[in-house]
Amino acid sequence: MNIAITDKSGHLSEKAFSEEIERAEEIRKRILKGEENYKASLGWLNTKNAAAPDTIEKINALAKKVRENSDVFVLIGVGGSNNAARSVIEALKDRGGIEILYMGNTLSPYALNKAIDSLNGKDFTIDCIAKNFETLEPGSSFRLLREVMAKRYSAKECAERTICTGTYGSSLEALCRKEGYTFLSFPLDIGGRYSALTNVGLLPMAIADIDINALAKGASDMEAELKAKAGKDNIALLYAAARHLLHKEGYSVELLSSFEPQLRHFYKWWIQLFAESEGKEGKGLLPSCAEYSEELHSLGQFIQDGSPLLFETFLSPEEQQSSIIVRPDGKNDHFDYLNGMDFFDINKAAFKATLSAHSEKCPCLVISFPKIDEYNFGQLFYFFEFSCYVSASLLGVNPFDQEGVEAYKRQMFKALGK
Amino acid sequence: MNIAITDKSGHLSEKAFSEEIERAEEIRKRILKGEENYKASLGWLNTKNAAAPDTIEKINALAKKVRENSDVFVLIGVGGSNNAARSVIEALKDRGGIEILYMGNTLSPYALNKAIDSLNGKDFTIDCIAKNFETLEPGSSFRLLREVMAKRYSAKECAERTICTGTYGSSLEALCRKEGYTFLSFPLDIGGRYSALTNVGLLPMAIADIDINALAKGASDMEAELKAKAGKDNIALLYAAARHLLHKEGYSVELLSSFEPQLRHFYKWWIQLFAESEGKEGKGLLPSCAEYSEELHSLGQFIQDGSPLLFETFLSPEEQQSSIIVRPDGKNDHFDYLNGMDFFDINKAAFKATLSAHSEKCPCLVISFPKIDEYNFGQLFYFFEFSCYVSASLLGVNPFDQEGVEAYKRQMFKALGK
Repeated sequence: MNIAITDKSGHLSEKAFSEEIERAEEIRKRILKGEENYKASLGWLNTKNAAAPDTIEKINALAKKVRENSDVFVLIGVGGSNNAARSVIEALKDRGGIEILYMGNTLSPYALNKAIDSLNGKDFTIDCIAKNFETLEPGSSFRLLREVMAKRYSAKECAERTICTGTYGSSLEALCRKEGYTFLSFPLDIGGRYSALTNVGLLPMAIADIDINALAKGASDMEAELKAKAGKDNIALLYAAARHLLHKEGYSVELLSSFEPQLRHFYKWWIQLFAESEGKEGKGLLPSCAEYSEELHSLGQFIQDGSPLLFETFLSPEEQQSSIIVRPDGKNDHFDYLNGMDFFDINKAAFKATLSAHSEKCPCLVISFPKIDEYNFGQLFYFFEFSCYVSASLLGVNPFDQEGVEAYKRQMFKALGK
Repeated sequence: MNIAITDKSGHLSEKAFSEEIERAEEIRKRILKGEENYKASLGWLNTKNAAAPDTIEKINALAKKVRENSDVFVLIGVGGSNNAARSVIEALKDRGGIEILYMGNTLSPYALNKAIDSLNGKDFTIDCIAKNFETLEPGSSFRLLREVMAKRYSAKECAERTICTGTYGSSLEALCRKEGYTFLSFPLDIGGRYSALTNVGLLPMAIADIDINALAKGASDMEAELKAKAGKDNIALLYAAARHLLHKEGYSVELLSSFEPQLRHFYKWWIQLFAESEGKEGKGLLPSCAEYSEELHSLGQFIQDGSPLLFETFLSPEEQQSSIIVRPDGKNDHFDYLNGMDFFDINKAAFKATLSAHSEKCPCLVISFPKIDEYNFGQLFYFFEFSCYVSASLLGVNPFDQEGVEAYKRQMFKALGK
């Protein structure tokens, strides 16, 4: 993996960048020593904690059982309990195999009815993932699905088809023990948005036939790299320092994008990671995203000529993984200049032209990696988690709490008479 | 339809708002007189121009033919040629009926191969929609699909299964005439982002069995209202004046949201409308969106406690259109306080709690309307188009051009040897 900065607008001074990297390196040193302040939230730092080989073996065995007896796997979860798995599954799962249904992420009766209707005539297994089993969306979806299950299956079969992922000592664990559901641990020392490499992210991926061994290997290799390399040789420090410096220079929005629609849901994982880690104390870069090339035809105008609010971070997979050649058809459609070209190269040309045009207006970061596969998703997860920790620390905020999310919950619980 | 402003943070002064509405009313007066400057772009103002009853009848007849001989309808189009139809289809089309495939909006060979593979064994019809038939994505997808068609069907059947929507005099029209494709007009005096109520938006909707009569009626009723009502009685002026004033007060991002996942794609239509109309000359509010309640668990933290960049605009359908009751199941899951409640009310409570919590931090606009159906989509399209025209005029920019989009295109055409 690599990171490059293209800045024709001259907003990043060499000197300021070097100083920012030095500050980032101080933070890295602290984290390597264990960082007392956040000790209770650093479980993700060591990928072997929750994604050790024996854990992965158990997950794969359970996943195999689910695939054998189900047409649909229902992932009940919202935010950190959904985004990592969904990123990978939506990117890599081609047609065929078990169907994945996402629930626990809405309260809309229209959407809930539609989801439940889609289970008609299909065998299914559910995994209710909730670190804090007070959150309304997963809690209420779980209730609805238990009702659907009870109408369809015996009590014994309901228990066999129900998995819960929660913290030890939680009311969700108690429910599991009483009803005989399979219980998996949501590590206490890992927050939802840092949980990709735990039961939370890995079981749904494994059920969708994602190679979680390769994913864990990618994360663990990135862990080794980021722990070994210092200062400007460390790509996470480069990224954290660059984005923090741009924020200080007055940019208020970071736009994550790529030219691969496969990465669409990964942006959402990234948005949660940074919005919840940094959006506090009246501070933080607003994380946003753009699906290129499609959204060049909407946001492109704003980026090129609108208010100078944002800088861009492009995800760029480098190797060719797919091919289609443009063949002439003699119909004089004025696109003959594409004849014989591969869409791989056309798409690359669109990326380079966009980078060139946009970097006249705003600084652009390019995070490149070999390809879109399990290994590289593992690399990306760990890279961004580590970067986010460093970036939030540069900003001077706690990377692990999310007190602001509680404000509407308090009002809602009151309105619902809880 | 109605608009309300909730502002516990006290950012909107009564006096400044009244003055802004007066300026908006001057713009409304100019547009009613025909607005010489933009005469060539005002076709959308009169919905009868491109959505007259006889046009709608023709569209419905063609749509019926397509539904009868196709399993899949392929909409080839990007930006303004795709977003309006897709908004309505994704919101209202339930399972069953003709499948809709969106192409012409990517250059990724992986995504293109996946789309083409999904046509295996299915009969299909295509509509290539392009105002300017130089845009790479639709042009190249059209070429690919002609190749797929030619392998499957006779020349005569290919012609019967191909529709193009373009401007009179364009190279797309010439291609249609030569090959015997069905040609529909993309009005010269209506830009892509204002084209919902033309052949561009209406034919794909009609093919997906959307009631376009009701949609046109909604738009036409909104047209009558916005043309008849002046000053503070005109909801489009209220919206345009409020957002422009908030922009002047230092807000730089407007976040459109709702608690109905059905409206997910409508946000994209809205983002294009405002980003291309206002993002120029170094000006403009950045339009963005949030899918609630899901994204309360990611962006919620930033909105509540992060940098004070944004204000929110909620879309709020008022009537109950769907129902699910939470039933007790005696399993002591700690959600018994929901027993007997309808998700319609739970979802409303979540909305109200969010509005109450967020409006402590940022001003919130609520645009309410009876329900999510064709009539109200017609109302929303016209309402936002009219508002956007007024808002861009208050900002002092041309609401109809998009020169910034051309910057990367020039570089790309050069790189591709055009």
